[in-house]
Amino acid sequence: MAAELDSDRARATYARQRIEVALEGSPFEAIVAISPENTRYASGVWVATQQTLRDRLALVVWPKSGQPTLIVCNIEEGYCRSQSWISDIRAYAEHLQSPIALLAQVLREKRLDRSRIGMETGYLSARFWNELIQMLPNAVFEPAEPIFDQARMIKSPEEIRRLAEGSLVTEQALLATYLCTRPGETERSLAQRLTANLLLMGADSVPFLHIPAGPNTGFPHPPATDYQVKEGDLVKTDFGGSFDGYVSDRARTMVVGKPSPEQVSLYACLVEIHNETLQAANPGVPASEIFRVARAGYRRLKVPFDPPHAGHGLGLSVHEPPMLSPAFLTELVPGMVLAIETRVRIPGEYGMHIEDLVEITADGHRVHTRNFPYESLLAV
Amino acid sequence: MAAELDSDRARATYARQRIEVALEGSPFEAIVAISPENTRYASGVWVATQQTLRDRLALVVWPKSGQPTLIVCNIEEGYCRSQSWISDIRAYAEHLQSPIALLAQVLREKRLDRSRIGMETGYLSARFWNELIQMLPNAVFEPAEPIFDQARMIKSPEEIRRLAEGSLVTEQALLATYLCTRPGETERSLAQRLTANLLLMGADSVPFLHIPAGPNTGFPHPPATDYQVKEGDLVKTDFGGSFDGYVSDRARTMVVGKPSPEQVSLYACLVEIHNETLQAANPGVPASEIFRVARAGYRRLKVPFDPPHAGHGLGLSVHEPPMLSPAFLTELVPGMVLAIETRVRIPGEYGMHIEDLVEITADGHRVHTRNFPYESLLAV
Repeated sequence: MAAELDSDRARATYARQRIEVALEGSPFEAIVAISPENTRYASGVWVATQQTLRDRLALVVWPKSGQPTLIVCNIEEGYCRSQSWISDIRAYAEHLQSPIALLAQVLREKRLDRSRIGMETGYLSARFWNELIQMLPNAVFEPAEPIFDQARMIKSPEEIRRLAEGSLVTEQALLATYLCTRPGETERSLAQRLTANLLLMGADSVPFLHIPAGPNTGFPHPPATDYQVKEGDLVKTDFGGSFDGYVSDRARTMVVGKPSPEQVSLYACLVEIHNETLQAANPGVPASEIFRVARAGYRRLKVPFDPPHAGHGLGLSVHEPPMLSPAFLTELVPGMVLAIETRVRIPGEYGMHIEDLVEITADGHRVHTRNFPYESLLAV
Repeated sequence: MAAELDSDRARATYARQRIEVALEGSPFEAIVAISPENTRYASGVWVATQQTLRDRLALVVWPKSGQPTLIVCNIEEGYCRSQSWISDIRAYAEHLQSPIALLAQVLREKRLDRSRIGMETGYLSARFWNELIQMLPNAVFEPAEPIFDQARMIKSPEEIRRLAEGSLVTEQALLATYLCTRPGETERSLAQRLTANLLLMGADSVPFLHIPAGPNTGFPHPPATDYQVKEGDLVKTDFGGSFDGYVSDRARTMVVGKPSPEQVSLYACLVEIHNETLQAANPGVPASEIFRVARAGYRRLKVPFDPPHAGHGLGLSVHEPPMLSPAFLTELVPGMVLAIETRVRIPGEYGMHIEDLVEITADGHRVHTRNFPYESLLAV
């Protein structure tokens, strides 16, 4: 418990410093966190119902000088007071008082109502946005996302430890589930066993889980059905757990019974592409270059798939910068944590997927995998 | 399988008719669904990654005359084609093409670029909103939510069957979990067993689950911790599963071992309030009246709790209109499905919660509960 508190404190201090540095170098007098992940990063609190109930905003106003303020629904106030290192907490009464009115009041108090302010315009709804600019017509609001991205993109050793540990137990939960699969089991049953295993391994929740079999593997994110796996079927999994807010995101493919020569040779192509892609992930390389290497592999090996990206940053969000795709020129630097993925899918026919956690280090990269290597196609 | 397809078709037809009627009576030439629940209602497809990745929009453009169009990320196109009754499906390439540019193009094609259009301004982000109004400066966009709310607020017999069945198995999964609780078990373990039980009972996923014990019951939505339950502790659960998109939302409280006289008498007060609140839920009554009845009960019985609401509509969203709170004057009508909840919480000390599924019928209401009645405090 004491160790946990220490690591919570270390993480809060790190996040604080990262935000302060990013804000200092920005043109803003203040930034406002609104999305669950940025509010969590800035305040240390994960306000669960902010996710289920979109209008129940939880915001952090972070001024360039002075202390931050946390704004939450009064239903969540007691919990936030018990959890956050932020001492200035203000609460609004849902449906009676607008969270935006309270935000405007706090900004006025801090004399920021004529300032240039970073706002999460990619999260705040148009309705709240229009309310805000009407209430504070003299403030200038611009996207705050680049500031939070800059802060969150480089992880602390503690964050890396959490992400790596989450990834390793996620891979173990999957291997354990795969190993007990027999013909006749339904996708639903596979999903149940996998969820139970991941929670047993310490996940707080399972934000996404896709475990299609047979022809359903041709889709990227289908729900589990009553389809029963049969001899020769592929089973493909893409899923993740939340570990104190930090998500895992892993994919592996297996075959029920003996794999066909076609399955083996296609899988070998994916492994070759995956290896080349992983090898390219080093400091100083632009994110888009990882994508270029991956796509060149698909083309050279004639794998029938046009990848939209080769992976993405991972942290408090499932997809976060840098995206490994043509539009992202961000240079990789040590402390970045990426999910690198290689896959193929033909809708209604078949699909395969490999996804690993990669940490960018000073001298290259480290792939965090232990008990479920991707190099050969698991057959059970 | 055939029965399932039939019921899918029946639901799609019902949703179509409800949207058409609501749109017909509105000032709009078209409405656009953007939130996962409205896109699902309008298209019949649940695009899973739209929830995990907020920018991966899935939209339905529904014109007053002519056929609707579904706009999705190309990653999800194959799945949507296999599932939706909408045949006009357009796909955008994520990060290369803006979903809003494609939306603007579709609206132009349909000659709606100078029309009055209902848009989900409570969901669309400010960034996308600003892009949209810049692209189509001659269109007038106003909130579409009242139209979708009007359509979704009254459920078809098939939707009621789904919600009721989901609610009953949710209650059973909870009772089964409670019955096997012994001193020494952690909240985490309770959460694991409850999740596993709910998935076994047919939930596709568990969007929210809170099962605090002892002093943690004083918070509304805390995550599970390593706290070990002990003799005399309350355990309080508020959770729900997703059943093909339709959510359940139930709460029950138990005590480990023998309840104290204070626990028994406080629980009896909640039961009295709960009964009075349920009794008030009848056609013709405004939603706000249910709240008034509930609050009067808390005050008369001196239960130390100031309820923010007495419950809410339930369907494809956890909270949907009508909210049972002072601001909602909507009259209850047959076909509405409500989650009515009665609770008390003292942060860091204790809390109790009862929540039931209530269907408004032609001659009153029906409480959907079977194996886990709320009338007496469960002790195990």
